[in-house]
Amino acid sequence: MKFTIQREQLTNAINIVSKAVSSRTTIPILTGIKIVAHEDGITLTASDSDISIEQYVPMESGEHQWIEDITPGSVVLPSKFLGEIVRKLPGEQVTISVNERFITTISSGRSEFNLNGMNAEDYPCLPQIEEDKILSLPSDLLKTMIRQTVFAVATTETRPILTGVMWELRDGQLSLVATDSHRLTTRKASVESAASLSFDNVVIPGKSLIELSKVLPDDDQLVDLVITDNQILVKINYILFYSRILDGTYPDTSRIIPQNTKTEIILSTKEFLGAIERASLLAREGKNNIVRLFTRPDGMVEISSNTPEVGKVTEEVAPSSVDGEDVKISFNAKYMIDALRAVDSENIRIGFTGAMSPFIIRPTEHDWILHLILPVRTNQ
Amino acid sequence: MKFTIQREQLTNAINIVSKAVSSRTTIPILTGIKIVAHEDGITLTASDSDISIEQYVPMESGEHQWIEDITPGSVVLPSKFLGEIVRKLPGEQVTISVNERFITTISSGRSEFNLNGMNAEDYPCLPQIEEDKILSLPSDLLKTMIRQTVFAVATTETRPILTGVMWELRDGQLSLVATDSHRLTTRKASVESAASLSFDNVVIPGKSLIELSKVLPDDDQLVDLVITDNQILVKINYILFYSRILDGTYPDTSRIIPQNTKTEIILSTKEFLGAIERASLLAREGKNNIVRLFTRPDGMVEISSNTPEVGKVTEEVAPSSVDGEDVKISFNAKYMIDALRAVDSENIRIGFTGAMSPFIIRPTEHDWILHLILPVRTNQ
Repeated sequence: MKFTIQREQLTNAINIVSKAVSSRTTIPILTGIKIVAHEDGITLTASDSDISIEQYVPMESGEHQWIEDITPGSVVLPSKFLGEIVRKLPGEQVTISVNERFITTISSGRSEFNLNGMNAEDYPCLPQIEEDKILSLPSDLLKTMIRQTVFAVATTETRPILTGVMWELRDGQLSLVATDSHRLTTRKASVESAASLSFDNVVIPGKSLIELSKVLPDDDQLVDLVITDNQILVKINYILFYSRILDGTYPDTSRIIPQNTKTEIILSTKEFLGAIERASLLAREGKNNIVRLFTRPDGMVEISSNTPEVGKVTEEVAPSSVDGEDVKISFNAKYMIDALRAVDSENIRIGFTGAMSPFIIRPTEHDWILHLILPVRTNQ
Repeated sequence: MKFTIQREQLTNAINIVSKAVSSRTTIPILTGIKIVAHEDGITLTASDSDISIEQYVPMESGEHQWIEDITPGSVVLPSKFLGEIVRKLPGEQVTISVNERFITTISSGRSEFNLNGMNAEDYPCLPQIEEDKILSLPSDLLKTMIRQTVFAVATTETRPILTGVMWELRDGQLSLVATDSHRLTTRKASVESAASLSFDNVVIPGKSLIELSKVLPDDDQLVDLVITDNQILVKINYILFYSRILDGTYPDTSRIIPQNTKTEIILSTKEFLGAIERASLLAREGKNNIVRLFTRPDGMVEISSNTPEVGKVTEEVAPSSVDGEDVKISFNAKYMIDALRAVDSENIRIGFTGAMSPFIIRPTEHDWILHLILPVRTNQ
């Protein structure tokens, strides 16, 4: 194998696939990046047990010549060194060549590295995917949907299925649901797909989605998603992003969302978030980061917390409106902060149905987002 | 105690003194910040076993009114909470008041905190300093001198005196020296002081200097330094910065600096640094981060390293000049990288006196800086 490539192109490709490199693995070859040189370009691949990323770099794109003098072949190089070396090389071009013992020469300007490589034939194969279920949505929308749900997945493995985000497609509407059983969040969007296409219970690990969102560009170019029984494949530009799908049945969360509310409060998202963040400064020291919210006779919403060993805090927020019964409720401030940061709306509507029933936070401006938080019982 | 202060002024003052707060201490009151309200302003103080910082905020400065309605008094507040609370308060002004049980009310806008404070009378006193030995130098110069020396102090406590930077003043010239016994760095500068003032063996802990340099502004206003037997006091604006001085005698380092060299090489600092950084990418995996340098018959300087389990690297640098004998020497790349990053000069002059003798790196443009590195013996 031999080729000469623009250093910037190689750096970008390494940065992308590196997100799938196992930092801890019992399979040494997975600490490497597989490089395959074809007649018309090169492919870089990295993989861990959950995700695999493949990036293709064509010889030329538009009027740019990115790669020259390709002799086809392949090698696996230690990703830790490959990335640092290429980033620090002095020239604009890099020449990579491999000998029969997989010793790889990387040269640029007056710098020459010889790295011990591995045989690419020992590298595991990526999943074969039949492209039957395809949907498309803009990259920036997918990125936003991930950001607005993934924070709510369970971080412990008590119920492994809850460490993923559940995807469901029905009538051209994609829904993402995440819950750690103390709070729940859903995000919906219309997407392009075959009219007949529908699925549910596609549960993608939260960690995979966080890595995917780092790879997605911040513009509205369309991303294709292919769903199979145990894999999802995301295609964007020259990148293929594979993630496994979690085994098991996601709980039916539709039933826990209350349909009627006894009180509805409309608040400025920013003002309310500021008050909750301050109230949680002291509460964080306590066990459960509990803050209390109640509607005062003078029409104000009061948020407070009390951590006897440190002190207490009282915040007032002026709501736009309060409809219904008085409210007096306690909850984990972190869940509220997460939810408010994920709401893309100037104002929010909170619906309560009782001191011990889950309450709902929605943007006032649209119906795409719903957060649900379970209150906690306190003695105060 | 009670006063109302501009939130920005209070935040700045907390940020400054927080650098001296003990994160781990057996004296609980030292986790706090002492606030004293005087008739004409307030003083914040924090301290750990090595350094103490005091910041005064006057009631008014120029046409700005910073503090209003002062009732004198004092309290010690937990620094962890105080900083976060003040940073997140909603209003532009903050009112702080303390009751007789040291419970402190911090209010701003619609937010009110009650923090459990401590009695300021239990806070240790700062050292009393007689201002007999005073010198002055520009803040940015002092900051540069610290940056250019402090990296070379010992990080282990085997010889505690080497964890400090040694200061010496003679004939209006201030010298800073740091060494960890494998490399040494010196930085000199002319300063303003009484003609009769001179001192040596003033060894200031490296950690104190790092904190001091965070407090120093990036401009050329004059900083006053007061030296006593066991403390140094730095005065800048309304800040007093105290550090203890290390006990013991700093080794006489002047004798280990070779006066004659057998070979002198002049190189571009940036090009040479790039080559050493790349050569050390693989060497870092080895035990001592060793790279080899030799002068080739074709006039080039070759830098290489070999880490059998990973690979090897060869770099070429074209020197501006090579005078004297051929050189073949091995050294720790980290020491060279540290030295080159601290040289404010486009080109450097390296003087060698033999494969096992210390070598010297100096800027070509001035004489204020000298780095010395001990080579290592290798079998290669």
